[in-house]
Amino acid sequence: MAEFDLVIRGGTVVTAGDTSRCDVGVKDGVIVALGRNLAKGAKEIDASGKLVLPGGIDSHVHVDQLSSSGAYTADTFLSGTRSAMCGGTTGIIPFAAQFKGQSLRQTVEEYHAKAEGQAMTDYAFHLIISDPTESVIGQELPALIKDGYTSFKIYLTYDALKLNDRQFLEVLAAARREGAMVMVHAENHDMIAWLSEKLIQYGHTAPKFHRVAHANIAEGEATNRAIALSELVDQPILMVHVSAKEAIERIREAKARGVKIFAETCPQYLFLTEDDLDKDGFEGAKCMCSPPPRDKENQEYVWQGLADGTFDVFSSDHAPYRYDSPTGKRVGGADTSFKKVANGVPGLEIRMPMLFSAGVLTGRIDINKFVALCCTNPAKMYGLYPRKGTIAVGADADIAIWDAEKKVTISIDMLHDDMDYTPYEGHEVTGWPVVSLVRGEVVWNDGEILAKPGQGKFLRCDVPVTARPRGTNVHGFNPTSGDYIKF
Amino acid sequence: MAEFDLVIRGGTVVTAGDTSRCDVGVKDGVIVALGRNLAKGAKEIDASGKLVLPGGIDSHVHVDQLSSSGAYTADTFLSGTRSAMCGGTTGIIPFAAQFKGQSLRQTVEEYHAKAEGQAMTDYAFHLIISDPTESVIGQELPALIKDGYTSFKIYLTYDALKLNDRQFLEVLAAARREGAMVMVHAENHDMIAWLSEKLIQYGHTAPKFHRVAHANIAEGEATNRAIALSELVDQPILMVHVSAKEAIERIREAKARGVKIFAETCPQYLFLTEDDLDKDGFEGAKCMCSPPPRDKENQEYVWQGLADGTFDVFSSDHAPYRYDSPTGKRVGGADTSFKKVANGVPGLEIRMPMLFSAGVLTGRIDINKFVALCCTNPAKMYGLYPRKGTIAVGADADIAIWDAEKKVTISIDMLHDDMDYTPYEGHEVTGWPVVSLVRGEVVWNDGEILAKPGQGKFLRCDVPVTARPRGTNVHGFNPTSGDYIKF
Amino acid sequence: MAEFDLVIRGGTVVTAGDTSRCDVGVKDGVIVALGRNLAKGAKEIDASGKLVLPGGIDSHVHVDQLSSSGAYTADTFLSGTRSAMCGGTTGIIPFAAQFKGQSLRQTVEEYHAKAEGQAMTDYAFHLIISDPTESVIGQELPALIKDGYTSFKIYLTYDALKLNDRQFLEVLAAARREGAMVMVHAENHDMIAWLSEKLIQYGHTAPKFHRVAHANIAEGEATNRAIALSELVDQPILMVHVSAKEAIERIREAKARGVKIFAETCPQYLFLTEDDLDKDGFEGAKCMCSPPPRDKENQEYVWQGLADGTFDVFSSDHAPYRYDSPTGKRVGGADTSFKKVANGVPGLEIRMPMLFSAGVLTGRIDINKFVALCCTNPAKMYGLYPRKGTIAVGADADIAIWDAEKKVTISIDMLHDDMDYTPYEGHEVTGWPVVSLVRGEVVWNDGEILAKPGQGKFLRCDVPVTARPRGTNVHGFNPTSGDYIKF
Amino acid sequence: MAEFDLVIRGGTVVTAGDTSRCDVGVKDGVIVALGRNLAKGAKEIDASGKLVLPGGIDSHVHVDQLSSSGAYTADTFLSGTRSAMCGGTTGIIPFAAQFKGQSLRQTVEEYHAKAEGQAMTDYAFHLIISDPTESVIGQELPALIKDGYTSFKIYLTYDALKLNDRQFLEVLAAARREGAMVMVHAENHDMIAWLSEKLIQYGHTAPKFHRVAHANIAEGEATNRAIALSELVDQPILMVHVSAKEAIERIREAKARGVKIFAETCPQYLFLTEDDLDKDGFEGAKCMCSPPPRDKENQEYVWQGLADGTFDVFSSDHAPYRYDSPTGKRVGGADTSFKKVANGVPGLEIRMPMLFSAGVLTGRIDINKFVALCCTNPAKMYGLYPRKGTIAVGADADIAIWDAEKKVTISIDMLHDDMDYTPYEGHEVTGWPVVSLVRGEVVWNDGEILAKPGQGKFLRCDVPVTARPRGTNVHGFNPTSGDYIKF
Repeated sequence: MAEFDLVIRGGTVVTAGDTSRCDVGVKDGVIVALGRNLAKGAKEIDASGKLVLPGGIDSHVHVDQLSSSGAYTADTFLSGTRSAMCGGTTGIIPFAAQFKGQSLRQTVEEYHAKAEGQAMTDYAFHLIISDPTESVIGQELPALIKDGYTSFKIYLTYDALKLNDRQFLEVLAAARREGAMVMVHAENHDMIAWLSEKLIQYGHTAPKFHRVAHANIAEGEATNRAIALSELVDQPILMVHVSAKEAIERIREAKARGVKIFAETCPQYLFLTEDDLDKDGFEGAKCMCSPPPRDKENQEYVWQGLADGTFDVFSSDHAPYRYDSPTGKRVGGADTSFKKVANGVPGLEIRMPMLFSAGVLTGRIDINKFVALCCTNPAKMYGLYPRKGTIAVGADADIAIWDAEKKVTISIDMLHDDMDYTPYEGHEVTGWPVVSLVRGEVVWNDGEILAKPGQGKFLRCDVPVTARPRGTNVHGFNPTSGDYIKF
Repeated sequence: MAEFDLVIRGGTVVTAGDTSRCDVGVKDGVIVALGRNLAKGAKEIDASGKLVLPGGIDSHVHVDQLSSSGAYTADTFLSGTRSAMCGGTTGIIPFAAQFKGQSLRQTVEEYHAKAEGQAMTDYAFHLIISDPTESVIGQELPALIKDGYTSFKIYLTYDALKLNDRQFLEVLAAARREGAMVMVHAENHDMIAWLSEKLIQYGHTAPKFHRVAHANIAEGEATNRAIALSELVDQPILMVHVSAKEAIERIREAKARGVKIFAETCPQYLFLTEDDLDKDGFEGAKCMCSPPPRDKENQEYVWQGLADGTFDVFSSDHAPYRYDSPTGKRVGGADTSFKKVANGVPGLEIRMPMLFSAGVLTGRIDINKFVALCCTNPAKMYGLYPRKGTIAVGADADIAIWDAEKKVTISIDMLHDDMDYTPYEGHEVTGWPVVSLVRGEVVWNDGEILAKPGQGKFLRCDVPVTARPRGTNVHGFNPTSGDYIKF
Repeated sequence: MAEFDLVIRGGTVVTAGDTSRCDVGVKDGVIVALGRNLAKGAKEIDASGKLVLPGGIDSHVHVDQLSSSGAYTADTFLSGTRSAMCGGTTGIIPFAAQFKGQSLRQTVEEYHAKAEGQAMTDYAFHLIISDPTESVIGQELPALIKDGYTSFKIYLTYDALKLNDRQFLEVLAAARREGAMVMVHAENHDMIAWLSEKLIQYGHTAPKFHRVAHANIAEGEATNRAIALSELVDQPILMVHVSAKEAIERIREAKARGVKIFAETCPQYLFLTEDDLDKDGFEGAKCMCSPPPRDKENQEYVWQGLADGTFDVFSSDHAPYRYDSPTGKRVGGADTSFKKVANGVPGLEIRMPMLFSAGVLTGRIDINKFVALCCTNPAKMYGLYPRKGTIAVGADADIAIWDAEKKVTISIDMLHDDMDYTPYEGHEVTGWPVVSLVRGEVVWNDGEILAKPGQGKFLRCDVPVTARPRGTNVHGFNPTSGDYIKF
Repeated sequence: MAEFDLVIRGGTVVTAGDTSRCDVGVKDGVIVALGRNLAKGAKEIDASGKLVLPGGIDSHVHVDQLSSSGAYTADTFLSGTRSAMCGGTTGIIPFAAQFKGQSLRQTVEEYHAKAEGQAMTDYAFHLIISDPTESVIGQELPALIKDGYTSFKIYLTYDALKLNDRQFLEVLAAARREGAMVMVHAENHDMIAWLSEKLIQYGHTAPKFHRVAHANIAEGEATNRAIALSELVDQPILMVHVSAKEAIERIREAKARGVKIFAETCPQYLFLTEDDLDKDGFEGAKCMCSPPPRDKENQEYVWQGLADGTFDVFSSDHAPYRYDSPTGKRVGGADTSFKKVANGVPGLEIRMPMLFSAGVLTGRIDINKFVALCCTNPAKMYGLYPRKGTIAVGADADIAIWDAEKKVTISIDMLHDDMDYTPYEGHEVTGWPVVSLVRGEVVWNDGEILAKPGQGKFLRCDVPVTARPRGTNVHGFNPTSGDYIKF
């Protein structure tokens, strides 16, 4: 019997730390060897002239999810994971989204039912907590964390989802007691609501006014507040989909003074601007998401934040609402005011190629940083490392083999999600994954889909190291022990 | 008939801009001449060797006011204004405090009744808005502004008073439409409540834990939020009783980028620290106020903010609750937990002498800045200038004559309020007003009280110039016209 | 005999602190009374409907000065002061500029000879120190300070003028010992020289490359260095003609942490940009000065610095080199490379009207701030206050009466200097002084020049209060006593 | 023949990116395989329960070097590399230090002669440039870079070494043309000289005054200047031995705005303070180095900078001057004034264990960051990666096997350099390398030295990727092409 089920031979293996020309030996779905001239595998893949990267982890994804507005994601676990793996992403962490009044456990079970038999890549779940009742906080969360759901997302905006500061504090305290990462959608709800009402009152209803309503300072304010609450409770948080320079500055300052704040950004904040919202008729709706694309100056801040370590994670925030659909962008029906448009853009498949092309090939970030942002850090942030997110002995053989010179013009036709548009139609990129593997199985090969629905498995997450508190809060008070150290 | 009713002769007249040796001529209560060797007045005061300053305006004062906890200020309009004038302050702006459900007009009338026949100095009113209903916002405020009540105060904490962001936005929008200054008590309510509960749960109930509960970041967060909301609506605000370096930094940044944010601080943030809360038994309650005294480093930030223009106003936040009284500090009765103690310290009389001694005589601030902070700026901020707050031809002859070398040891015995303690017992200062005049009448002379109750009059305030918006908010949107300028 | 030689009646008197409708009574050239309905003066001026401001002090002026390049200022003490007073400026502080090898005392005497019998307004002198030998530092400076020359200017660039850090430290130490204000021209010499050589090597010689060579970071670097040196020696400095946002930020930070740094800016940084350098042929030379005009963003920073107190002084840096003259802009003769062009722009006459129009009338700064920047602060900074710079009893009657509604189109024809161009040709302003007085004598009246050459007198300056050190430097070391306080 | 010359079995392999339990297979001195259950090697090392780390690269080391004061390092290439490898460091980059007037090539040859037959670990050279003549810049540097000397160090202080700004610019420009990393010792020379003279004049000569003379702002100023010069020329630099918060803040700001500034710190800034200089008699000299140890607050800034990515490299700045020696600390002979003491502290051997113990085990930095700072980044910064600095297929088998639980009390007796003291005498650490390998050969094993002098080889360095410029400088000017892009 061959020593290896599979050998990927002759490629350049890239991790968050290293770049090394070597072969990769896989056995039972796990990487068991890295070496020069490994023995012949039962199966061989020639990667010479190619980059061998860890499969991406997209840790911010909405699939098979109903929004409070009545819109429904076009992608299921099947089409979502399919699209992912065709873009080099071999693991996703979508949301199990609680509705008010619903139990979290029930929510999780419903999402498991949706995923069952569908997924082509492995997957875990974040829990969206919109109703942090005493039983949710006191009983359900501790039990769910033990079962491998170790990250929550909370919202500071949206009527159906938003928590007030007190609720946020309780969630943070629970995360501190039990060990979990808290993700935060940070925009000031009242500011956006007030501005929206004013805009609509004056007849400013076109998609571009979505960006006016979601003012930079609404994101900056909520980000500052989230950091302060995190600092008070001494519990790390991760700011998702950061877009505004005001928010980036606050996050950078917090990191520089030692507060454990992590941050994520997404392709839409690098490759779209407010001008994309300002198109004829309803067309701008295709690029509407929250926070909205901003301007060139804000884009530069986002790029800079990727380069200097302000951002830890690059995700897609894939939120696929079809353009021409009553459960998609047009969920408001005849009312096309920006407040009624379904919010979100797709991005699972293009996430890594677009950043590779515009970031790595231009020299803005190096390729190790690219792997860290797209693969390794998401795995570390959410308790999937070292099983996922890297190419190292002992890790699952989730791998993407990239042709760094392949030129691709992005269009809806060549993508593998269930959408009817892409906001990046016509964008040209260089570099694309030509082979993807999940636990040693080739799932995507040179344009051909080889995965079977249900091949992807659910992943229990460990309590991430990144979620560990420092010990005492800013006043020397330990919220879990009551100890108080004068400082 | 003499050209002047009164001549103050031979002193050094100090204003916010100038220092000049000259005589002051008064007629009908108004300053009508400044000059060398003015003609003899019907009455003469020899001010040679003395400083002749504008009478102070204390624009943050609680008198004859019931707090939601049931505590009641020890001082009435009589004792409050008496204490003020004995410390060189000849005008006060206390609050007319709305209770939820109460009409603002009714509130104002009640406070007029309290003041009637009592005040020894002139006075105006700020309106505390705790219930910004549609009729309050839409009808009462516009009418009251026309009647001379051109400043509101809102709270971001205290169960009985706090507004949420939406309500704050509505108040700001009303101030923008009608012209008014909005004062903000900025502390994050939920942070303080959460920390307080934790502290009490672990048995940390002593007065010093008040300072732990009112964490610096609670003030920093709320200050940042208030600035963001002000920026959104494009309406100036004035941050009251600022104490924390985190707040000072945010205010300084906001000013430096051109946002119209004004700020005030108070003696308790220069002359008390957390150590004053950490005394045997209940003694620390004497120095409890919100925000609390902090530490030496924060004191230095406050001093620096006074020197560099971050602070515009120096007020007392006089909130006189007797130490040994069931309507004072002991309003919680047997429960002496820090959450039950009446919050506030007295300061009307010592405000100016303490700053003069520790600020001017040490060279931290010059004497013109002292006059600006204590007299002229409060008058300008609230629409009383040029009638009040300076020594200039045409201004009311509200004047304090200071002996800059007089040494005084502060004690409750020598003060003229109705309190049973002062937090500054035993503090030594140099410099004290020896004569105070209100509209040309001597009300305090060398230790003797000459004023009669009711001698002080109500002042209608103009819409202050400082309350004018810039034109459009940060997104180029004009909230009152609906105009939208892309920028 | 009339009580007053002159009464200015019915105007609105504006000072750095106050705005007051009153009459001004003058006797023996001094303001002796401010009042309502002053007695009739021997002479009367009707100022009703007008603003009565202190005469301006322009504290940064080059007249009758030879530059090291061989260029010579077009203006003498006569034409310079004439131009000044026609724009509301009644006192100037030009430079007595030492050449290397020259004694300072000799320098001062030469400049006195130039001024003698020429000046129409009063004047003092700053000393430019280009050769801080032991005898200059040890003997000449102390003696000159005693004689009323209490401010020095040093340069960090220009081959003929620049001091190295060591020399700068010695000048600061001397200022600390003897009491004097040190003005600093802060640009990094080597950066500019290196960039200039590169630019010229590649054929980039047009005037616009002057702005490229004088990079913002050259100003930012030198400003930071000057602040550090000042902080080390614990001696205040005044940064002159600040133009770059990098410099403004450093100054603002220094002030905010309590370092005694003062700063000045000039009209060319508000009203010109790099685009003015980028004109056909040699035309751009008209707007060349050092530092150069920058761009709109930097202009905004300068405006913001005026509004928020970062700048203390607004001067002209009047450096009048004729455009079409071999001792003017064309001093390089056939070589029109930007390195050969005489550096400087005129501005004495337009300084105050342009700031009034674009600053006060637009609401960017209030009129009291305008007076502070243009009149009072320069007097305070250089030891001329309270004799000069304000309208107060006891001050010299140096006064400008402004028609705030007068519309003027600036052109070289209507100005009173000896230049052949103005960089502001065609600029329209509202507001201009219609009468100027020097010590009670009308020198400029409704378009007519009434002053006589030699009417202006030399002013001895006191040691300015602003030049006082704090006590110990940043390491707790007192450089004049050797005392060392651990901190 | 065995597939592997050596297998390190069962350890936990740690790199800058990953932590993985696996075996390491070595052949011909190179790592050829990482895997589970590798085939038996000719030699085997049992690493179970141990950490297998890359051998450290200490990129800031002085050995066999004469200082301008006449002091001479106690360590030769033999003792230096011996000490290094006993502390887990398997590669060093000492300096070839040019004296003024000397050719660089000759300098390099002299240092090769010193190293020949001595070194126990591999080594490369940085060039100290003290005399950047035209021939040095124009001929020698280009040739030396081609020969593998791709990093220069320049000084902004020390009479014998300091460059002025112009010289620094020329070195930067050469580095940009040819490709090289420029290291900068950033302290303001004149500030230190001036303060030193003052201190000595007042009799403050004890070692502790070294710290007063080397003021924080001297480092902050020079750091800011170096960054500005680098920004102007558009050439990356690396700030060495950073100690002061003022410097750290400037570096962090520069990185955040995208300037390619790298930074290094050292053990003495984490583990010593000014109090260590303040001991009886001459004892404080043992902890004297430049910049000096500072205080607890500065230490915290250094720790924070290590954690947040402000620092890229952790080196020792090993500068071994014996305490009781006329060529060591007492080089000044009878004059023990702080200006005469030889500057520098040893640290080659304790560098990694002290950071491991106080940084990794406490959770301040994770172990991957530790490897990055001590091993991988130095290799990347100076063109030795991927040959050195990591454990990856293809890299040299320079490896240290650590016992993470080993407790060691540091004392001069157990160290392997040629010093007579250690500044860390008595410090207790946990974790120490028990085996070190250089190119697959065990050189240090459980307390035994197995290396032979001369076993270490010279390393030619590639042009580091990190030294690549961005393209144009801050004014859109490309200094090597003359292209000018308006921005």
